[in-house]
Amino acid sequence: MTDRYASFANSGPGRALVTRLGLPRPPRLRRYREGTPPLPGPVLRGGDGRLADAVAAVLAEAKIDVVDGPREGLGALVYDATGLTDVVDLRRLYDFFHPAARSLAPGGRVVVLGTPPGAAGTPAGAAAQQALEGFVRSVGKEFGRGTTAQLVQVAPGVGEGIAATLRFLLSGRSAYVSGQVVTVTADAPPPADWDRPLAGRIAVVTGAARGIGAAVAEVLARDGAHVVALDVPGAGDALAGVANAVAGTALQLDLTAPDAPARLADYLGARHGRVDVLVHNAGITRDKTLARMSEEAWDAVLAVNLTAPERVTAGLRAAHLIPAGGRIVGVASMAGIAGNRGQTNYAASKAGVIGWVRALAPALAADGVTVNAVAPGFIETEMTARMPTLLREAGRRMNSLAQGGLPVDVAETVAWLASPGSAGVTGNVVRVCGQSLLGA
Amino acid sequence: MTDRYASFANSGPGRALVTRLGLPRPPRLRRYREGTPPLPGPVLRGGDGRLADAVAAVLAEAKIDVVDGPREGLGALVYDATGLTDVVDLRRLYDFFHPAARSLAPGGRVVVLGTPPGAAGTPAGAAAQQALEGFVRSVGKEFGRGTTAQLVQVAPGVGEGIAATLRFLLSGRSAYVSGQVVTVTADAPPPADWDRPLAGRIAVVTGAARGIGAAVAEVLARDGAHVVALDVPGAGDALAGVANAVAGTALQLDLTAPDAPARLADYLGARHGRVDVLVHNAGITRDKTLARMSEEAWDAVLAVNLTAPERVTAGLRAAHLIPAGGRIVGVASMAGIAGNRGQTNYAASKAGVIGWVRALAPALAADGVTVNAVAPGFIETEMTARMPTLLREAGRRMNSLAQGGLPVDVAETVAWLASPGSAGVTGNVVRVCGQSLLGA
Repeated sequence: MTDRYASFANSGPGRALVTRLGLPRPPRLRRYREGTPPLPGPVLRGGDGRLADAVAAVLAEAKIDVVDGPREGLGALVYDATGLTDVVDLRRLYDFFHPAARSLAPGGRVVVLGTPPGAAGTPAGAAAQQALEGFVRSVGKEFGRGTTAQLVQVAPGVGEGIAATLRFLLSGRSAYVSGQVVTVTADAPPPADWDRPLAGRIAVVTGAARGIGAAVAEVLARDGAHVVALDVPGAGDALAGVANAVAGTALQLDLTAPDAPARLADYLGARHGRVDVLVHNAGITRDKTLARMSEEAWDAVLAVNLTAPERVTAGLRAAHLIPAGGRIVGVASMAGIAGNRGQTNYAASKAGVIGWVRALAPALAADGVTVNAVAPGFIETEMTARMPTLLREAGRRMNSLAQGGLPVDVAETVAWLASPGSAGVTGNVVRVCGQSLLGA
Repeated sequence: MTDRYASFANSGPGRALVTRLGLPRPPRLRRYREGTPPLPGPVLRGGDGRLADAVAAVLAEAKIDVVDGPREGLGALVYDATGLTDVVDLRRLYDFFHPAARSLAPGGRVVVLGTPPGAAGTPAGAAAQQALEGFVRSVGKEFGRGTTAQLVQVAPGVGEGIAATLRFLLSGRSAYVSGQVVTVTADAPPPADWDRPLAGRIAVVTGAARGIGAAVAEVLARDGAHVVALDVPGAGDALAGVANAVAGTALQLDLTAPDAPARLADYLGARHGRVDVLVHNAGITRDKTLARMSEEAWDAVLAVNLTAPERVTAGLRAAHLIPAGGRIVGVASMAGIAGNRGQTNYAASKAGVIGWVRALAPALAADGVTVNAVAPGFIETEMTARMPTLLREAGRRMNSLAQGGLPVDVAETVAWLASPGSAGVTGNVVRVCGQSLLGA
C-alpha cells in the first residue's frame, strides 16, 4: 500500500533523475489536518455573476484572504461564471485565467461557479455554461503541482447553499478530487460548527472493517457522528477494531441475507430510532471475462454491490428510520462509468448504483433526504495492492495527480456529501480519482 | 495517414511476432461497402421486453437471419433489456450473454436495447437500466476482434423508430463506434429507399475541403443529398475538388465574418430555398497551455468551433431555411468531454458544442428538426499525422479497437444522424472513438 515510485521521485536524488528522464513526478498532496490553514495562500476572485455576495460571505466566514490581482503563491482561483450568458462571453474566462495561470501555490485550487446548462435559458447560454466543463477539465490536466480544478453548477436562486461545497473544494479534504462537476440545487443553512458538522448524527457505514469503509467511519466520527460500523460476520476482529477506534458500535450482518433489511431496521430502530447518514460502501469484485465468469461470480457481485443497497434502503425507508436531513451515499466506481475488461458484473453493479442514486434523489427530495454517489478511481488499498505491478503502476500514474488516492480521500468526499450543509447537493456522482484519464 | 503498425501486425510475419510479444493486434474493421451483406453472420436475439416486434421487423426488412441459440460465427447479439425492471432481473443479462460470449464472428456487433433510466418508473428500475451501460461498456472492452457494443435507450411507446439506429449499429457503417449510449425518443417512418435515404435533400457541410469534412460530403452525397461544400476562401482548389467529386456545389465563405450567416442564408435561399442537413464540421486547433496562450489563439478557436455554428444556425433559422425534417449535426470532440492539456480553448469550444446541441434539441423538437453531435476520437487525418509519434501511437492504441478511425467512420455516423429515419434521435452526443479509454 505504499507508492514507492512517488517516494523515490520526491527524494533528493530521485527528483533529479525523474526530471531528467521526463517521468511523472507525483506532487505531495495537500491534505486536511486539524489546525492547518484552509489554503496555502489567498484567493484571487473573478467573474461578475450572481454569486459575488455568496462567494464573498463563504470566504470571509472561513477566514480566507482575498486579493485583487495575480501574485505569486495564490491559494486558489475562484471564478463566478454565472454571468456568461452567450458564447462570446467565454473570452472573459481567458482574461481572468491567462494572467493568473502561473500564480497558484502547490496544492492550489481552481473553482469555477456556473449555472446548470439546462437552466441557462438559451442554447447559446447553455453552450457557454457547458464550455466551462471542457475548460475546467483542461485546466485540471495542465496546471499540475497538486492543483485541482472543479466546476460547481449552481441553480438560479441558490446562494449560501454553496458554502459547504466551496469550503470542501478549497480545502485539503478534496485533495484527490479533480476535474469534477458538482451541482448545487438548493440553499442550506450553515452547520452550527464547521469542524463537527455531524455532531449528534447517527451514521451507518457498510463494509467498515477495512480500507475505504474504515476510513469513512473514522472521518464521519471525527466530524461528530456516532458510527455504526457494519460488516460481514467474518470481518469480526477488524470490525471491532474500527468501531472501538471511532467510539462507535460494531454490527455484524450479511446484507445479502433476505432478512438483512428487516434486521438492520430492527437494530437501528431499537438502538437509535433513526439513521441520519447511510453509506453503502460494502463491495466486492469477482473478475473474469464474461465467457469464463461463473454464475456465482455474477450473482455475488450484483447482490452485494447493488441489490443490497437498494433493499436495505427500501427497508429503512419503510420503517421510517431515515428522517428529514438524511443523507444516503452510494459507492460507485470508475468502472461503472467507463466499463472495464473482465468486470461486466462489477461495472454493471456500479453503473446500477449510479442509476439508482440519480433516480432516488428526486424521489426523496420532498423528504429532505439527499442521495449521492462517490466513484473512486485508483485508491491505495489492500485490493489495489494485489493488482499486477504494471496495471497498478498505470492506475497510479494515469491521472492528473500522477498518484493513487488514499482511502481518506474518498472518506472526506463522503463526509462532505453527508454534512448538513450539503442539503442542496443531491443526485450527484463525484469521482474521487485525481482526474483519471479513463472515462466514458 | 497510414497506420504502419497495424499493417505490419496484420501481415504474415507481423502477426506471429506481435502475438508472441503480447502487443495489440488491431483487427481489420468491417466497413460498409455497397453490395456487402449487412452482417458477417446471423443475429442471436434475446430478452423479453416490449421491443420484440420492432426488432423482428427491422431484422426481417433488412434481410438479416435470426437464430435461436449460440453457434459459431454469429453476426450480432441483440438483447431487448426493456423488460428488466428491477435489479434482480439483471441476472438475465448473464444468462443470455455468458453462453454466447465466444460466438461472435470478427466484426460482430452487440446491441442492448433498454429504457432511459429516467423513464424506468422506480429507482430499482432506473438502477437496472443504468447497469446496462456499465455492462455494455465492459463488453466493448473485452470482446475484441473488431466487435462493437452499444446501448440504445428507447423511450416507452417507441417501436419502429429504432430501425435506422439499429441498422446503423449492426452495419459496417458503425465500424469505429463502440461503447456508446444512444437515445431514441420518437418513432419515424422508414425512408423510401434505405440505400439513398437523403435523396432530394440539400446538405451544407462546413470545413468540407479536407479530412472529415470531405468524407462527410462524400457519404451524404452517396446517400442521395445535394451537397453544398463550404470552406474558407483559402481552401479553393481542394474545396472545388470535393464539390466536383460529389456533384455538389462549392461555397467559399469565412464563417467567422460578421455577415457570414446572412450571406449563407441569402445563398441558400436563392439557390435551394432551404437546407435539410446542416453539418458544422469546420474546426481549428491552436494548442498552448493557458499561461502561454495568446488571446488570438483563444478567440480564433472559439470563433470557428463554437460561435460560428451558433450564429450560422440562428441566421438560417431566422430566415426560415431549416424545414421540418431538418437535421443539424455539430462536431464536438473527446476533448470537449474529458478536457485536454494545452487545449483549454479547444476543449471549451467543443464542450460548448455539446451544451448547445443538448439545449437546441428540445427547442427545435416542435419544428421537427433534430440536433445532435458527433465527438471524434483519434481519426487518421492530416491533423493527427502531424502529431508527435508517441502521442499518435498512444491515440491509435488506447481504444477497444487498437487503431485510429478513418474520416469515413465519422461521416457514416453523421449520415445516420442526418437520415430521415433518425427523427427520434435528438440531443445525442455520439463518440466516434473506437471506445477510447479516455473520458470523463
